[in-house]
Amino acid sequence: MGLPFEIGAASDAGGRRGVLHLPHGAVQTPVFMPVGTAATVKAVPQETLEQIGADGAGAEMILANTYHLTLRPGHELIRRMGGVHRFMSWNRPMLTDSGGFQVFSLAKLRKVTDEGVEFRSHLDGSKYFFSPEHSMEIQIALGADVMMAFDECVETPATWERTRDSMSLTHAWARRSKQYFEAHREEVPWAEKFEGKTQSLFGIVQGGMFPDLRRESAERLVEMGFDGYAIGGLAVGEPPDVTREMIARTLEFLPRDKPRYVMGVGYPDQIAEYARMGVDMMDCVLPTRAARHGLLFRKAEPGERQADEEQIGEESIGENWTGETSVIRMNIKRVEYAEDQRPIDPACGCMVCKRYTRAYLRHLFMAREPLGATLNSIHNLAFYLDIMERVRATLAAESRLSGEQAAAWLRDSRDSGDELDQAVRDPWA
Amino acid sequence: MGLPFEIGAASDAGGRRGVLHLPHGAVQTPVFMPVGTAATVKAVPQETLEQIGADGAGAEMILANTYHLTLRPGHELIRRMGGVHRFMSWNRPMLTDSGGFQVFSLAKLRKVTDEGVEFRSHLDGSKYFFSPEHSMEIQIALGADVMMAFDECVETPATWERTRDSMSLTHAWARRSKQYFEAHREEVPWAEKFEGKTQSLFGIVQGGMFPDLRRESAERLVEMGFDGYAIGGLAVGEPPDVTREMIARTLEFLPRDKPRYVMGVGYPDQIAEYARMGVDMMDCVLPTRAARHGLLFRKAEPGERQADEEQIGEESIGENWTGETSVIRMNIKRVEYAEDQRPIDPACGCMVCKRYTRAYLRHLFMAREPLGATLNSIHNLAFYLDIMERVRATLAAESRLSGEQAAAWLRDSRDSGDELDQAVRDPWA
Repeated sequence: MGLPFEIGAASDAGGRRGVLHLPHGAVQTPVFMPVGTAATVKAVPQETLEQIGADGAGAEMILANTYHLTLRPGHELIRRMGGVHRFMSWNRPMLTDSGGFQVFSLAKLRKVTDEGVEFRSHLDGSKYFFSPEHSMEIQIALGADVMMAFDECVETPATWERTRDSMSLTHAWARRSKQYFEAHREEVPWAEKFEGKTQSLFGIVQGGMFPDLRRESAERLVEMGFDGYAIGGLAVGEPPDVTREMIARTLEFLPRDKPRYVMGVGYPDQIAEYARMGVDMMDCVLPTRAARHGLLFRKAEPGERQADEEQIGEESIGENWTGETSVIRMNIKRVEYAEDQRPIDPACGCMVCKRYTRAYLRHLFMAREPLGATLNSIHNLAFYLDIMERVRATLAAESRLSGEQAAAWLRDSRDSGDELDQAVRDPWA
Repeated sequence: MGLPFEIGAASDAGGRRGVLHLPHGAVQTPVFMPVGTAATVKAVPQETLEQIGADGAGAEMILANTYHLTLRPGHELIRRMGGVHRFMSWNRPMLTDSGGFQVFSLAKLRKVTDEGVEFRSHLDGSKYFFSPEHSMEIQIALGADVMMAFDECVETPATWERTRDSMSLTHAWARRSKQYFEAHREEVPWAEKFEGKTQSLFGIVQGGMFPDLRRESAERLVEMGFDGYAIGGLAVGEPPDVTREMIARTLEFLPRDKPRYVMGVGYPDQIAEYARMGVDMMDCVLPTRAARHGLLFRKAEPGERQADEEQIGEESIGENWTGETSVIRMNIKRVEYAEDQRPIDPACGCMVCKRYTRAYLRHLFMAREPLGATLNSIHNLAFYLDIMERVRATLAAESRLSGEQAAAWLRDSRDSGDELDQAVRDPWA
């Protein structure tokens, strides 16, 4: 029994308008998932998250981080509280990552063996061990609707050989993840609540910046058979056109009838572009992290250019990767906003733009008032969710495939990658 | 033309159920005003503040701090933005303090002369000068519905002589405040919006811990004639029974037909008690400051005792001053709450208690998640507002004075203090 995923329409470019049916509800795809690292989307109350965005539909699905929740408050505590949905009072779909990326980016003194990864907590230095089986056990205890196979993330840049070896380890871990999950999936804390429904498990395609390895990784994972497929190890410092190329070259080898998820992306223009290419799910800390640093997204006015290059912490936010400027990044601390009575984005219908001025948001940021982080986060999330809403509307409208045609197109998805690639480029070919 | 203040009912103990009619709306009294120091009630969005509390009525009136807003973003900026209501998008009544207390508690290198106070900002050391005229000018620029005469706050403990001299300075400053206000009240930024309505000015009774000085201060201010009277210089470290005694001994000499406001109080039991004694308005940072330190108020269960003594920053929160324990202070960081699936207060109907568990709130606090401060603040404010709602209901129900009787009782309020005192003890005497 697979994860029910309906695709109602698809565009020439491969973008798909779909609905993912998960135990905690239906999710309209393509979907952007706000990140709730520690069982909270930072600074945003759950009741607000349920209403965010111009249409008031709120975030339909969020992500929580396995690594963070294992360290604090601990997955066994969350299991006893009924799972992370009940713990945080979020009754809509949720996804947990595998913990792999955080182990590689946050933890100290990592030691990787075929068995798993030993590391020390970035919080207090205490020792942990994650294996594929541990990651599954933790994610079952957390009880998100979608969980991710445990993977290794290779450093960037890495050689072809190093990337291939890491990918092979990821494949072995994916197989062990699937075995453990299939033997234990009934242990999810809410098993009795949704009769017959349990969690879904996605595999993660690795392969670094090498198209041949991406293809090999996709093919191996598809052979194993997962409920959905993620593309991992991107947006880790490589140029944006490489990210885009890797996504395109991986999508070719993933089945059309399963959800495809690109992890940890991206800027507003990027998430729209990836969705149009056929990505169904994305998540990123960018809207909330940028918000806490006073960086707010808004639509560009006709002919407007991005005035400056901004920093978020140590990350540079450079020019828009497409070279176009449809989205402006406002640094709310700039003095030009001190008496600006306009909303962040006059074209935005979010609760922040309906009520508060740039002048007030600048004051909150300069005075380090916690309300600043909250309002900035609400706007940036609304901006992201609204982009996805527009992309979904466009995909539905542009589609030349619908109803039976889309079903036939999906049935073709077990074709070889090359044929698929051709079909995606021109679905009538 | 005075400030319209209707008193509908009064209890034997002097407590009054009233309505204060201000330019930005009507306020049910006795009222507790959450503190919005820097034009934000810390960590709580305005839309939430409008709905907080079991009855969904929200905070009817809030306070903003003149000292903080003068330093950042500056009162001239706020004037240009249309006043603090419009600046922060709060369309209900608001009060600004005089800046006096903050100058004495926060600022550096104060130098007090008859003319005013020179001091340096606690933010960046830059030099400021506040006189009664400056305080009025600033408060008119901010444009709160109620503004406060500029006062000096004496240190605690202080001798009778030192307290009398300081009180005399406060009286001279009150007179100058009133003169400036009467000459400039039409300059409020929203003067055109509410035809004919302008701000109100309250005098502040000082006199330290000396009943004779409190009486003298009340009498001098009443001679000058203000729209309402505040009792200042309390809750500055003296024992709670002294605070209560000073309030009682001051209320005796304040006219019954004007609002009476005790500044900067108090614990939940205290605000209920003061309201029953005849105080109409109170404000305090305690519910929000305690919330940010993880201290949550809830009703005691029958026979329950406060288990421990908690600290908020450097302030000790000792045993309930009444000796009774009707309110429990929970320190949410305690391990006993780690898996406690109950709401903070099972008897509370606030949005936090309806949705979130102690276990989740403890996790947010331990993980230093900003949502913790927000949810804790919402609950504590709801707890305070609900107390005042119950006190108002009790005052209305208990009253033996209503309608014409209350009106007659109010007309007596120009009697001498002693007679007033007698009348308050037994209004039928």
